[in-house]
Amino acid sequence: MPARIIDGRSVAQRIQSEIKSAARDFTAQAGAAPGLGVVLVGDDPASAMYVRMKRRACERAGLRSEARILPAASSQAEVECAVRGFNADANIHGILVQLPLPDHIDEEAALNEISLPKDVDGIHPLNIGRLGMRGREPTFTPATPTGVMLLIEETGETIEGKRAVVIGRSNIVGLPVALMLANANATVTICHSRTRDLPGAVKGADIVVAAVGRAEYVKGDWLKAGAIVIDVGSNSLPDPDSEKGYRYVGDIEFESARAVAGYITKVPGGVGPMTITMLLSNTLKAARRSLNE
Amino acid sequence: MPARIIDGRSVAQRIQSEIKSAARDFTAQAGAAPGLGVVLVGDDPASAMYVRMKRRACERAGLRSEARILPAASSQAEVECAVRGFNADANIHGILVQLPLPDHIDEEAALNEISLPKDVDGIHPLNIGRLGMRGREPTFTPATPTGVMLLIEETGETIEGKRAVVIGRSNIVGLPVALMLANANATVTICHSRTRDLPGAVKGADIVVAAVGRAEYVKGDWLKAGAIVIDVGSNSLPDPDSEKGYRYVGDIEFESARAVAGYITKVPGGVGPMTITMLLSNTLKAARRSLNE
Repeated sequence: MPARIIDGRSVAQRIQSEIKSAARDFTAQAGAAPGLGVVLVGDDPASAMYVRMKRRACERAGLRSEARILPAASSQAEVECAVRGFNADANIHGILVQLPLPDHIDEEAALNEISLPKDVDGIHPLNIGRLGMRGREPTFTPATPTGVMLLIEETGETIEGKRAVVIGRSNIVGLPVALMLANANATVTICHSRTRDLPGAVKGADIVVAAVGRAEYVKGDWLKAGAIVIDVGSNSLPDPDSEKGYRYVGDIEFESARAVAGYITKVPGGVGPMTITMLLSNTLKAARRSLNE
Repeated sequence: MPARIIDGRSVAQRIQSEIKSAARDFTAQAGAAPGLGVVLVGDDPASAMYVRMKRRACERAGLRSEARILPAASSQAEVECAVRGFNADANIHGILVQLPLPDHIDEEAALNEISLPKDVDGIHPLNIGRLGMRGREPTFTPATPTGVMLLIEETGETIEGKRAVVIGRSNIVGLPVALMLANANATVTICHSRTRDLPGAVKGADIVVAAVGRAEYVKGDWLKAGAIVIDVGSNSLPDPDSEKGYRYVGDIEFESARAVAGYITKVPGGVGPMTITMLLSNTLKAARRSLNE
């Protein structure tokens, strides 16, 4: 029996409609909509597309968004100034700096400018530390990892006691997903480019999260039968049959994996819509908190 | 062939003598010795003993230490006031709040009072976040985990690519050790009380770090032959043959483990002396940085 599809689009839609209704209530109470400030530096087409998608999602959910689009040659000071402008703006409740930034920009310094109550991406080191530590609570949980956890929960399977393998250890996905799975009492293994025998490690896992950025890297015969498989990757592959000349694929070889897994996400339509949804959710949360200040 | 012993006492002694010489240089330059401020609340005998050991080690290495010993019934404000006193004292370069604190004290709030440049224990959430994140550097690496890493390096074996299992996920040992092993490019599995088949997980590991706080919990036959085994536990067991009526044992069943492992630490005389040494090392580092401010 092929794996059941965990449909990120429909989960995201359900949550976004809850956000929409809560945003309407907020707007009625506060006299202004929850506001997201987006900083985009340079003209990378993928980054520009992500920003457009995020802004459109805001609009659909009744959130306001504002963008500062800076040229690729902007200085560190100009980028930080854009962030500080949003910090000071009472109508902006959440701030997103679209990554990656151009090479000449110090990413850490730029991100550290975001005031903690507006760090809706949840990737400030203080948030990551609190996320991993017992008895500590982050201001926000990071968007993509939170989306990953919700998709796993969507299966109805318990996470506690399961063996989870996270492939990739990026600051925005791999590391926080591993910490959140450990918090949910899974036994978590963090795999990466230096891992020997990755197929062997994956074979033991009840839950596999792939966030490695390599097209169709994880094969179906690596998987344990019945595993929950979450694909965070989004890689473009040349495709002459497609109108655009390319198509998006994940880090998992979908067809072979589907034959073995118990549950699996698709690319697109899996984690991607959840990332945007969690960004909206964190922005709404930030806006509500601002009322209680 | 039984495992080689990784002798924490002799490694610690070697590093402490380097610290002593560097502390002498610092004192000559600055006109005052590097200073450690210790806050101890209540009269738990083990905590009192750890504080005595730490202060004696300071003295031996040419560091100054000062203690604020507060009664168990002290208020949150009194504990935080003791920390703030050390923050304001230019002759105190590092601050240690001995854990655990009494139940009525909010540990997180108390620890958050420690100013970052003086957080020589390295367990501020910001430090833990930076420790885990790529491209971020903590102000200090936490004492016990750093000691664990140095003992592993003492074997001369490479860490990169090895499979490591960390048993326990405490804020001060398990979590940061796991992050540091991942930074050293090991493939790390975090095990804990909810892990199913712990022996099976341990069996696959080239490096085992036990920090679970259960006397002689990990058995020799769980281990892979030749593994590097680091025992962070320190548990007292009743022992009528001993003068004190008890003896200290680790989380590893030493004799059975020694027969299988490649390298192993002893309790006492393994990780313990390294913890104190790393505290001295971080205090010296903090003192040196204060000269450049």
